[in-house]
Amino acid sequence: MLRNVTLASMALALGAMLGQVSADDGDQELLATAQQLFKPLPADFATPQRMLTAEKVALGRQLFFEPRASLDGTMSCAACHQASLYGTDGIPKSFGVQNRAIPRNAATVLNTAGQFVQHFGGNRQDVEEQAMRALLSPLAYGNPDYATAMAHLKAIPGYAPLFAAAFPGTADPITAENWATAIGAYERTLVSAGAFDRYLGGDTAALPPQARRGLGTFIATGCAGCHNGALVGGTMFQRFGITTDYWTETHSTAIDKGRFVDTKNDADLYLFKVAPLRNITRTPPYFHDGSVATLPEAVRVMAKTQLGKDLEAADIADIIAFLDSLTGEIPQHFREAPILPPGSFVALPVK
Amino acid sequence: MLRNVTLASMALALGAMLGQVSADDGDQELLATAQQLFKPLPADFATPQRMLTAEKVALGRQLFFEPRASLDGTMSCAACHQASLYGTDGIPKSFGVQNRAIPRNAATVLNTAGQFVQHFGGNRQDVEEQAMRALLSPLAYGNPDYATAMAHLKAIPGYAPLFAAAFPGTADPITAENWATAIGAYERTLVSAGAFDRYLGGDTAALPPQARRGLGTFIATGCAGCHNGALVGGTMFQRFGITTDYWTETHSTAIDKGRFVDTKNDADLYLFKVAPLRNITRTPPYFHDGSVATLPEAVRVMAKTQLGKDLEAADIADIIAFLDSLTGEIPQHFREAPILPPGSFVALPVK
Repeated sequence: MLRNVTLASMALALGAMLGQVSADDGDQELLATAQQLFKPLPADFATPQRMLTAEKVALGRQLFFEPRASLDGTMSCAACHQASLYGTDGIPKSFGVQNRAIPRNAATVLNTAGQFVQHFGGNRQDVEEQAMRALLSPLAYGNPDYATAMAHLKAIPGYAPLFAAAFPGTADPITAENWATAIGAYERTLVSAGAFDRYLGGDTAALPPQARRGLGTFIATGCAGCHNGALVGGTMFQRFGITTDYWTETHSTAIDKGRFVDTKNDADLYLFKVAPLRNITRTPPYFHDGSVATLPEAVRVMAKTQLGKDLEAADIADIIAFLDSLTGEIPQHFREAPILPPGSFVALPVK
Repeated sequence: MLRNVTLASMALALGAMLGQVSADDGDQELLATAQQLFKPLPADFATPQRMLTAEKVALGRQLFFEPRASLDGTMSCAACHQASLYGTDGIPKSFGVQNRAIPRNAATVLNTAGQFVQHFGGNRQDVEEQAMRALLSPLAYGNPDYATAMAHLKAIPGYAPLFAAAFPGTADPITAENWATAIGAYERTLVSAGAFDRYLGGDTAALPPQARRGLGTFIATGCAGCHNGALVGGTMFQRFGITTDYWTETHSTAIDKGRFVDTKNDADLYLFKVAPLRNITRTPPYFHDGSVATLPEAVRVMAKTQLGKDLEAADIADIIAFLDSLTGEIPQHFREAPILPPGSFVALPVK
């Protein structure tokens, strides 16, 4: 957590400086500060360990929209991560197969691969692990085992050549590992750059005046202490509720113990991954449990619980103008549904 | 039913003629016969009573993908009618809100507006009635009343201007009737023309030789007696199981009484709408209950139960080559998800 404190202190110090310079100078100062705290989005989230190929991405795109690998043939990644809703489902908490209640909100899939871990509790290391384990999660795809999940795909003749093209030189490429690699490859291309990236590139006019003012307020208030990097979040864990228990402000109907749920380590009590704020104005409701429906209220809650501050309505409006500049273009290969190989879903006996 | 008999007799007579002409003449004879029985798809299914406007279609497209007008925020038209699966969901029988089991298969939304009635039992007059009643159906959107359904939409600020643009000059345009009109307008544009339409336009080479042979077999066998018109079906009711009870061939796990379920009229026992065959090779599983997973088996069952014929495997293969020519282009404004106005789904109290 040392790094968090350092960043937060720096943000506050830089924020204080902003009050002392003229408007024009201020624009350049603000840009310089923002360039320190944030980064433009990359073209994709490939890594040396996770190289992308056109075949892997194309297969992963199909598998992302594919419902027939789930227990009852109804669940796909796209079911909860809808392009129409900027990669979310618009409801506080999602549902898996057979209407099973998921205890947390479905975060957007846009830019998600750029985070240091996946899920609100950080219990998935990367998008590949997330995709693979979703196949068996009772609250997601609900398969009894990987063999059953893959048997569904093997029953659709069109998939064999697609897996063979994406994973050449293997005898039986329809595996859960390859499913995960392909979906991960696709998700690593779901990047939504926008006005803020142009701003960080030096085009200060890419942000309207209120958004720039809001950026200054965002930094001066201390938000950027945790919400930083290319995703404006997704770089660290943080306790939700530093100065106030979060549920007193969110009115959550259930208290979620955060990372503690997985680790059972007291130090992880109420620790959550800091949410990326890219596309945040388009992805209500807010927080791990979707307990807050609107962004002004979410910003108020954050300032109150994390920084002990009561923000003025005008400051909240400015911050939201800034946050709106984090809205990006939805990649066309997400908005446009791929055509899936035909084949009836056939329920398989559960051992 | 007089019209059906006339068409069926004509189809059989024309089919018999096909055996008596030379190959080249046969191509033109076959085309002429096909032009009598079938029609190219129109550009859209607008009618004088259901005129389309760009604003209505655009709004309808958004509402088609909109899950937040349902009881729990999970059900949209697009949930069961996925562009990836040619407007179907790939499972035998679909599920509504809260995993409620729908007793019938989700037919494709492509070209559906061109049918004489909607639903397998024909209990919806047109796509508008279908959309409107889905809002309240316990097995679809599950709303307790139209006011609740519309309250969900009114809670999303972005919808007011869209409804106002589509339905100008009305004080409160967010109504269930307008919801239905808009979705209907969109569905009336979901037309998927393809090779068969080019063939009917005179380009005999648009169909490969096996498909043309299959077309001849389709007509000669008597299939076109019921499967005719622009949709190659969707023009009449017919008893499923004329020469054999259907369930002895489909091995259906439940016996569905068809149109009788709604009318309680003995004459409607086992009567179903004749399914359109457009895109049929892309939309398994088959029949009202999705009881048959593959098309060769579905063609066999049809010939057996409707015409008392045992088709040879080669004839079935030819017929399927013809049916594949009924696959069309999926309209881009269906494949590409619209962007919906942001807003959290908020569960409303059910009175």
